[in-house]
Amino acid sequence: MAEQPLFRRVALLGFGLIGGSIARRARQTGDIAAEIVANARSEATLARVRELGIADRVEADPARAVEGADCVILCAPVGAYAELAQAIAPHLAPGCIVTDVGSTKQSVLRDVGPLLPEGVHFVPAHPLAGTEYSGPDSGFATLFEGRWCLLTPPPGADEAAVEKVAELWRRCGSMVETMEAAHHDRVLAIVSHLPHLIAFTICGTADDLEGESRQQVLQFAASGFRDFTRIAASDPVMWRDVFLNNREALLEMLARFTEDAQAMARAVRWGDAAYIEDKIRRGRIIRRSLIELKQA
Amino acid sequence: MAEQPLFRRVALLGFGLIGGSIARRARQTGDIAAEIVANARSEATLARVRELGIADRVEADPARAVEGADCVILCAPVGAYAELAQAIAPHLAPGCIVTDVGSTKQSVLRDVGPLLPEGVHFVPAHPLAGTEYSGPDSGFATLFEGRWCLLTPPPGADEAAVEKVAELWRRCGSMVETMEAAHHDRVLAIVSHLPHLIAFTICGTADDLEGESRQQVLQFAASGFRDFTRIAASDPVMWRDVFLNNREALLEMLARFTEDAQAMARAVRWGDAAYIEDKIRRGRIIRRSLIELKQA
Repeated sequence: MAEQPLFRRVALLGFGLIGGSIARRARQTGDIAAEIVANARSEATLARVRELGIADRVEADPARAVEGADCVILCAPVGAYAELAQAIAPHLAPGCIVTDVGSTKQSVLRDVGPLLPEGVHFVPAHPLAGTEYSGPDSGFATLFEGRWCLLTPPPGADEAAVEKVAELWRRCGSMVETMEAAHHDRVLAIVSHLPHLIAFTICGTADDLEGESRQQVLQFAASGFRDFTRIAASDPVMWRDVFLNNREALLEMLARFTEDAQAMARAVRWGDAAYIEDKIRRGRIIRRSLIELKQA
Repeated sequence: MAEQPLFRRVALLGFGLIGGSIARRARQTGDIAAEIVANARSEATLARVRELGIADRVEADPARAVEGADCVILCAPVGAYAELAQAIAPHLAPGCIVTDVGSTKQSVLRDVGPLLPEGVHFVPAHPLAGTEYSGPDSGFATLFEGRWCLLTPPPGADEAAVEKVAELWRRCGSMVETMEAAHHDRVLAIVSHLPHLIAFTICGTADDLEGESRQQVLQFAASGFRDFTRIAASDPVMWRDVFLNNREALLEMLARFTEDAQAMARAVRWGDAAYIEDKIRRGRIIRRSLIELKQA
């Protein structure tokens, strides 16, 4: 028998891959929310959520969506958080937990934290899960299973609220870890944001090649290029916001990477075989570590 | 019933993933070679090929291996070709076809072409197939199925010889295309060599992070980093040689990529949201083209 729902009413602000997957999971298990209220910015998304019937209520106005909710989850691109927080703040019920699913966490503490009234608990979260698809149809109930969810509660956060958000993600099938927001942003910059920036960039570099070569890049993509494009199909607005909201850590990791790539270029130019071979061997070691950790 | 073997005796110089896969394919189908002679540089590889029993004869001396062969396939790292060509040239039978499987083609024309005697046909080739594994045990008969093989015959190459090499690859299950060596090197630089250089480099950048962050890169690799490491596990000597033997095209593509990455960095630093979004949208278009071409 399913456990009691963790929350009485969960309001999802934004209904793309992540919001839609939380809704489907909650529907399927019954132990997350007794009632789900969905809000989205676009009319098309709202209409589609109504059609899909995966929310108990659909509200076009975020302020109305959060009324009486004991849990509000921001599922919009992180660049939209400040405006959303401004709109909902006066309407949040006392004791309500506000959380989110954004890929940058310092920006969330900065943009949302100061706007929330006394007595509302703020527990930012980041589920490390996704696919290259987006929109209200892209979600599915098992998206978070076996994936990490990182919580970055601000100093002095209410422990019971943190534990409830952790339990929400465990009920979604995730493993939960808590870390400091600045540390989160640094780790994600190298693990996720930089690889995406590189993937988008190399696609553009290939796209700029003159006619015949460009065609052949597509034809012979299986030789390595393909693996780089897999993550390049993700949502443009979401990723634009991630880059702009993790500026410092992303630029630092890109600078480190660029230095390393230039050192490799120099070794190639001057024929430094030992340097190149050593770098390749180190790459293999990292890859093998992933295989051993079952992350490959 | 199997067709007549294309060649009487095929000598494989080098027995890693590619050489071993050709041998297994030839064994399995019977229509490629009546006899397979295997040669490799290391004693361990020679011993293992004998154990595996996938060659009719194993020869430690490349000069002896090519004697009486009507087809010689160089399957060693491209950096070893010049020395190999020097060793075998005086022992090649008149009319013999010399081909190879290397990832760089101008270097092969430069290193091997001038050493071959009159009456020997030279048809460089590059099967676009591989895995992250290497060594005599890594090969398998279906490796080349449905994959491209690119031929880069020098100007004036014997048409019958070119056709025989094309037929060899078709019998391995591949699709064959002919192109000019310089063009090949340029296309492969962006499609394969640059992605590998980037993958090796980002693994190194991650490996250089201080303790805790490094550990977490491994732990949270699923967020994008993982896709980049998949190709970073390939053979170090092979890739070292590829980089050094496609120096100019690789450095040019890396320079283009670096300019594009720097432009993206500048947009992130100055908050140019429109620029970033446009670049991401272009990345998606390339990805979708791959899906439409069934290369994804």
